[in-house]
This record gives sequence, C-alpha cells and structure tokens, in this order.
Amino acid sequence: MKTIDVCLSPDLMHLYKVHDRTVVVVDIFRATSCMTTAFAHGIGSITPFAKLEECLAMKSKGYFTSGERDGKKVDGFDLGNSPFEYMAEELKGKHIAFTTTNGTQAIAKSIGAREIVVGSFLNLSAVVNYLRQSPNNILVVCAGWKGKVNLEDTLFAGAIVELLKDIYMPECDAPTAAQHLYNQAKHDMVDFLKDSSHVQRLAKLNIYKDIEFCLTPDQYDVVPRLKDGVLLV
Amino acid sequence: MKTIDVCLSPDLMHLYKVHDRTVVVVDIFRATSCMTTAFAHGIGSITPFAKLEECLAMKSKGYFTSGERDGKKVDGFDLGNSPFEYMAEELKGKHIAFTTTNGTQAIAKSIGAREIVVGSFLNLSAVVNYLRQSPNNILVVCAGWKGKVNLEDTLFAGAIVELLKDIYMPECDAPTAAQHLYNQAKHDMVDFLKDSSHVQRLAKLNIYKDIEFCLTPDQYDVVPRLKDGVLLV
Repeated sequence: MKTIDVCLSPDLMHLYKVHDRTVVVVDIFRATSCMTTAFAHGIGSITPFAKLEECLAMKSKGYFTSGERDGKKVDGFDLGNSPFEYMAEELKGKHIAFTTTNGTQAIAKSIGAREIVVGSFLNLSAVVNYLRQSPNNILVVCAGWKGKVNLEDTLFAGAIVELLKDIYMPECDAPTAAQHLYNQAKHDMVDFLKDSSHVQRLAKLNIYKDIEFCLTPDQYDVVPRLKDGVLLV
Repeated sequence: MKTIDVCLSPDLMHLYKVHDRTVVVVDIFRATSCMTTAFAHGIGSITPFAKLEECLAMKSKGYFTSGERDGKKVDGFDLGNSPFEYMAEELKGKHIAFTTTNGTQAIAKSIGAREIVVGSFLNLSAVVNYLRQSPNNILVVCAGWKGKVNLEDTLFAGAIVELLKDIYMPECDAPTAAQHLYNQAKHDMVDFLKDSSHVQRLAKLNIYKDIEFCLTPDQYDVVPRLKDGVLLV
C-alpha cells in the first residue's frame, strides 16, 4: 500500500524526505486557492518566489506581479491575495510572478520533491483523482502561518487522507490527526473555522467572501504542477 | 484573560517565547507518566538529561539512572521507561538521573521558561488545578516522536485547553486543534489511539499495560516542577 504523510508546518520540513514523493502544497487562505482560481481562468503560468524583491523584479520582464504579506497586498504589486482578482479576463494567457507570506515559502521548502502539485478545496477532487493515478507516496505540506500550524491547511490535508484512505496508509500521527479534524469539520467548515486565528485575522480585513469561497470544494478541475520552477497546468 | 498555546513538536520551539510562561511538558508514552508515577511513590528528585552519556555518568554520584531510547531500556541503566518500574519501594527518597528519546529533550528545549511543570494524564487534574492558581500564560510543549507530532501528547494538550477554557484563551490554532481532538477522543482514548504510530510501536514491544495505564486520568495528586535543573514536588 502506498503511504501518505502530512507536514503540519514548513518549519518541520527537515523531518521529511521528499525526493521520491508527490508533494501537495496547500495554503487555503489564500495562496493556493488563488493559484487554482487563476489556472481555472486561463492564466498561462505562475512563477512562485519566496522573496518579495525577486518577485517584484519580474515586472520588468513583462510579468504581472502578485505580492501579499500579513494578509495584505504589498505596494507596487499588481495583484493581492484574493481569489476573485484572479478571475479577470485580462490575465488570460498571461504570466504571474507570485509571492505570499506562507504559501510560496512552503513551495520553496518542497523543492527537490519528485513532483509538486498545488492543492486547495477549490480543486480538491481534481487533486485526489490525480493522486489516485500516481505511483508515488504523498506528502501534504501545510503552509501554516509563519511556521505555526493552522487549522484550514490541516483540514485540507485531512481531506486528502480521508478521500484516499482506500489506497494510501497514514505514515505517522499527523495525517491521522488531520483526518479526525476533517471528519469533524467537513459538514460545515466555515462554522468549524470561525474561531480560528486566520479567519479572525482575515475578518479584520473584511474578507468574509474570500473565506467562504476558499472553503468551497470542487469549483475547478485543474491541477497546477511545478515544472522547472514554474507552475503550469 | 490569560492565554494558552500548544507547541506540537519540540522542533517548533523556536516559534514560542517562554520566559514569561508556565510551560507544561508532556510525553504521555512514557517519560512524564513515569516521572509523575515516581513522585507519587515518594522519589526524592529526578534530574532530566538530554544526553545518554551525561545521564549514565550520574551513577557514580549515587543516582539511580533511567535510560530509554526508541522505546527500549538502554544497557547499563538501572531503569527503563515503564511507569510500573517507578512504584518500587527501594526508590523512595532516592534520586534519579533520567533520559528518554523525546521527553527529556522537550524539557531541555523549555529551559528559560518562568516555570516548567511535568504533565501526564495520571496527574491531569492536579496540573489543571495548579495552573488555575497561576498568574502566567501557559505553553504546553508536546514531546512528540523525534520531532514529529504525535496524537497522545496532542490529546493531553487538548485536555488542558478544554479544562481551562473558562480562564485561558487559545492563542492560535494549535490549541484549538488539540482541543477538538481531545473532545473527540476523551470517552475512549485507548480506542482512539489504537492506530496511532506510538501505540503500534509500543505494541510491538508488548507494552499494552503501560499504554492503558498512561491514558488513565487522575491517578496521582502531584505536580513535579523543575527547580535549578532538578524536578521536585
């Protein structure tokens, strides 16, 4: 039986070997939700950057730039971190350079994996179906919040564990814990997360619409994958 | 309102400030369960060591030595890591030098805290009552397994969050996640943990009796505290 593990924080990545695994990177609020949305609306590519300056520098090369820190759009960037921005007609076929507080850092720490895919609730079934065809063991990497574990990414990891339990066995306790939490939350994730730290943080920024959208499963049938440092579908 | 946070793995300790907190160190299977049992049966003191050699060297100073690695007693040590060993009459009033795979490492990483106490299900209510009187914010430090998150320590952390929810507010998502898991598990923790990695590991060593005992709340009314590097009650 193939195995599945969950890294609950990028600061625990040193504990996991990735070279022979498919890594699913998740940052529900909101990086990987934005990426999924962008590809579903026809973006040409997304190049993730861990550093703000390197990302912004891509503007001179004709890229749209997306920059978020601490939940807010950074001055000078074209786009922020709301999935609704990535539905714009003008982005079709274009290329984005992307950096966020947590999501793009999690991708950076996953480099070296056999394969890196982008997951969110928006493309949950698409990712699950893709993983079903894969010969590799899986590691779900939760972006968390500045190294700390968060609930929404853990729930997504739990969803992957639950939906693949017939063919992937949990490797340790983190996937099992995530699975228990997902099964407790799945019937009303918005309600389950209402006291979570990130929802509180985003609520202060008045982003209820983003929160609800990012927690809606199966809106899009795309599986963005990293090829030579660039996300493509 | 005072706050409570949970560090799910010693490898995440760099994210937490401890100087103004009471840290509760927990290693349910089995270091902190052994320590609790030892004090309840009249041990004089326990000195925790992160390193095996330093611990063993205390033998020449008249200490009983406890050494466990990977769930097994280490050759040359007087005692292993089963709570039942710490009920022995001959240990009364004596001093133990103690090292384990995870528990004593978690204590070492908590040094610098305003206060360090040892928690286990065996002294759950005693610890909760002690914390109720404390003016400090709390950090529960889960020993985990070689840096990885484990379920049993997370459940204990969740119990502390749940039982103090009237006066301590969760600081981020880790305490909330732990609390959800505890509430799901509390009516039959042995059953909830039967597939967990550590129970599987210990089951291979035939330690069912230890597992059941370590998951039994409120056997002892002691709260071991670290004073100048030595645990005392």
